[in-house]
Amino acid sequence: MVKNEWGNSIYPLVPGREIVGEVTEIGCKVQKFKVGDRVGVGCMVGSCHFCDNCINNLKNYCPKMTFTYGTKYYDGAVTHRGYSNTMVVDEHFVVSIPENLPLDATAPLLCAGITVYSPLRFYGLDKPGLRVGVVGLGGLGHLAVKFAKAMGTNVTVISTSPSKQKEALENLGADSFLVSRDQDQLQAAIGTLDGIIDTVSAQHPLLPLLGMLKSHGKLVILGIPGKPFELQVFPLIQGRKLIGGSMIGGIKETQEMIDFAAEHNIKTDIEVIAMDYVNTAMDRLLKGDVKYRFVIDIGNALMPSS
Amino acid sequence: MVKNEWGNSIYPLVPGREIVGEVTEIGCKVQKFKVGDRVGVGCMVGSCHFCDNCINNLKNYCPKMTFTYGTKYYDGAVTHRGYSNTMVVDEHFVVSIPENLPLDATAPLLCAGITVYSPLRFYGLDKPGLRVGVVGLGGLGHLAVKFAKAMGTNVTVISTSPSKQKEALENLGADSFLVSRDQDQLQAAIGTLDGIIDTVSAQHPLLPLLGMLKSHGKLVILGIPGKPFELQVFPLIQGRKLIGGSMIGGIKETQEMIDFAAEHNIKTDIEVIAMDYVNTAMDRLLKGDVKYRFVIDIGNALMPSS
Repeated sequence: MVKNEWGNSIYPLVPGREIVGEVTEIGCKVQKFKVGDRVGVGCMVGSCHFCDNCINNLKNYCPKMTFTYGTKYYDGAVTHRGYSNTMVVDEHFVVSIPENLPLDATAPLLCAGITVYSPLRFYGLDKPGLRVGVVGLGGLGHLAVKFAKAMGTNVTVISTSPSKQKEALENLGADSFLVSRDQDQLQAAIGTLDGIIDTVSAQHPLLPLLGMLKSHGKLVILGIPGKPFELQVFPLIQGRKLIGGSMIGGIKETQEMIDFAAEHNIKTDIEVIAMDYVNTAMDRLLKGDVKYRFVIDIGNALMPSS
Repeated sequence: MVKNEWGNSIYPLVPGREIVGEVTEIGCKVQKFKVGDRVGVGCMVGSCHFCDNCINNLKNYCPKMTFTYGTKYYDGAVTHRGYSNTMVVDEHFVVSIPENLPLDATAPLLCAGITVYSPLRFYGLDKPGLRVGVVGLGGLGHLAVKFAKAMGTNVTVISTSPSKQKEALENLGADSFLVSRDQDQLQAAIGTLDGIIDTVSAQHPLLPLLGMLKSHGKLVILGIPGKPFELQVFPLIQGRKLIGGSMIGGIKETQEMIDFAAEHNIKTDIEVIAMDYVNTAMDRLLKGDVKYRFVIDIGNALMPSS
């Protein structure tokens, strides 16, 4: 979005969509929150409220959904968010953060967390004993491991980098680790997984992933590569496998995810930075040099002018 | 298979996998059938009987499933079928044909019929009022229209040939017809379907089909083109849509499909031919010149030698 790589950025652009803070003021019709509450806002701040998706707590799939930044709001103004010391937001798009969760390590759950939690639930990959693969160990991937483990599944991390094995098994608690460029490991993994959460946005082949699924297995794609995938349908037909997608989650489910994180002590692994470090952080992000999310300490960086 | 286009044909090859007839003799342990019963055999005649799929009435997904012709049986012999006046078959792979169904027009239900019936059920596209698209109006497609209508759904036939409109609406009972090369019709159909049964084996773009689905809609692919599809994942993610496959069905479900056909008076539209017409029929098949299945009258062509 900052570099307009998707071609739809509107400048000036104020990014930030994993936002936490305290309620400082409420409108007269607000019912869910009071001043002093610990709250969070994720990827969206508006929707039509009347379509089937809105009525079914799936505002994230409303065709008129307004992203937290860089899209037009009801009033025609472009939304600016996150990298600011205050924000005004419709209470429908705000979630509560329980006392036992730290604000900073909870912030990334509001986008990355719900993005992996929702498909684990929707595609039925949340049953104890199921075997779930997680492709890619970044912001999304490391949270997919934590949530899938907390749901009781057996987790295999699938990565191109053998160097991530120790991290996956010892620090994140995955059950096994598979190097996707190792043909012997791929061969041994054929037909072993009930589902795969694929978090990788770079171009990569789907066929080996489909091969790792059992019959009736599910490959959930969360990243959008610049070019289309090549899709061989034979494994879909012969094994009744499916490829599905998912995009963040509704607010009801986001609250459920936050409460689940509080119950299971799930936090994002973060590096807290000051605002003046942000350009360096962007450079490091492009190199994959962060475990696993930068969080900007906006409160200290942007004190309200007195 | 006849021309080895999939590269796995074993000659001499005796094809035929939509087979009907009468039981003439039974083994001493046979329980399901008696001499004189009207029966059918579809695409498979063997499986391991012990894997998860076999135990769950999904022998069609058993990794050791034996196709009715052209694959190795338990004993190492290559299976030869259909185009013959008698066959010996394990009773597990035989279904009963109710008295009110004609044998000839029922035969193609045993492969084409179950191939479309099973995904309508499995992917939940069998609820009255749902809007289901059927791509391609051949052997599979025309049965998909009949089964989907009998399940109470609203059916749109999607075809490249405007000439099929009358046939689809008047003879097969579809609710609407869409020419997939007409951009205006495509545009008007965006986001209108709950699911699509895609029966086309020729190369074709998936993006317009994904566009026609509502959020959470399902595209079921049944044909295998020679080259991989191009898969743009954006619609999968933004609309939580999925692409799945399906391959024939288990025997329990095949019997259920036959009984459903008997109850709803569903028959294949067929052209019965004599054995000596088979080469002409093959040529016409390649040109799509048949409504919608040729059925060979083996009984009259191949009388047992006395």
